[in-house]
Amino acid sequence: MADDYDLDRAIRKIPNFPKPGILFYDITGILTKPDAFHYCIEQMSQYSRNLSISGIASVESRGFVFASPLAHMLKLPLILLRKRGKLPGETYSVRFTLEYGEDQIEVHKADITDGQKILLVDDLIATGGTLRAACELLEQGGGHIEGIFAVVGLSFLNYEKILKGYPVKTLVQYQGE
Amino acid sequence: MADDYDLDRAIRKIPNFPKPGILFYDITGILTKPDAFHYCIEQMSQYSRNLSISGIASVESRGFVFASPLAHMLKLPLILLRKRGKLPGETYSVRFTLEYGEDQIEVHKADITDGQKILLVDDLIATGGTLRAACELLEQGGGHIEGIFAVVGLSFLNYEKILKGYPVKTLVQYQGE
Repeated sequence: MADDYDLDRAIRKIPNFPKPGILFYDITGILTKPDAFHYCIEQMSQYSRNLSISGIASVESRGFVFASPLAHMLKLPLILLRKRGKLPGETYSVRFTLEYGEDQIEVHKADITDGQKILLVDDLIATGGTLRAACELLEQGGGHIEGIFAVVGLSFLNYEKILKGYPVKTLVQYQGE
Repeated sequence: MADDYDLDRAIRKIPNFPKPGILFYDITGILTKPDAFHYCIEQMSQYSRNLSISGIASVESRGFVFASPLAHMLKLPLILLRKRGKLPGETYSVRFTLEYGEDQIEVHKADITDGQKILLVDDLIATGGTLRAACELLEQGGGHIEGIFAVVGLSFLNYEKILKGYPVKTLVQYQGE
């Protein structure tokens, strides 16, 4: 496995999606290229082995695509964070503000253990608002966020500020549109 | 890796979810048990190796959790099928009828190749309506469905009928509520 891979080539940039003026960074081009996908999971795996992670968590739904093979490879529990009303058991819950309106994510109480050392995985960090809420949600359950790992980081949206205090690692950064 | 595993023990049964009278089979209990999760992916992998699969496809979002480590392990392209409006590029699309109302799923045209031999992966088969639509969607793109593999099958909902013509494999079947 190469230590370096030109991921940028696998990321499609689609203008005016989901609305005019927005350039969308699409990671599905990574998933159809096994070399690109393997590179991402390998990088996440190396990062995790240097911390002593005891769980992988992710917010639906594209995050699952990266978190799941990582949890499988490292033989670690996989904790799913989902939108309100999707998880059937007893949950912890957190509300948060989005650009327009509010949202809410939940996690099964049974899925987190007190003191669990968690790596939070996502495909892309934009404003960081959802990931910040995810950290608070996992902490509610007694989890400790050892790090946040995303394939893509949209640095120009200043997510470092909202995620202050959490170690953040990304594989490709975009500085502007 | 054991050839047999009591998956039923890892599947939580939650009554009256999402509405009164429905017993919900919750697969998140598999994900937090690495042995159970490994067993599922290993079984899917063995099944795939007997066909000559050239792509793994899955409908959001719980399906991604099983399809993704399988695609990663087998070094195969992963094709995401998503709800309408989520995929930014040019898509094929299919509408289908649900118990109440209609739904629509899409796939990127760029993600399927003509003649691609696809294994469709999901967490659970209930009525089979969404998976049937997924098969038709992949066929629209020139794909050939070699099989459908789900962890859980709710046999009492008669999904075999709607999925007739497609080989279906499940690891746990439930015969009634």
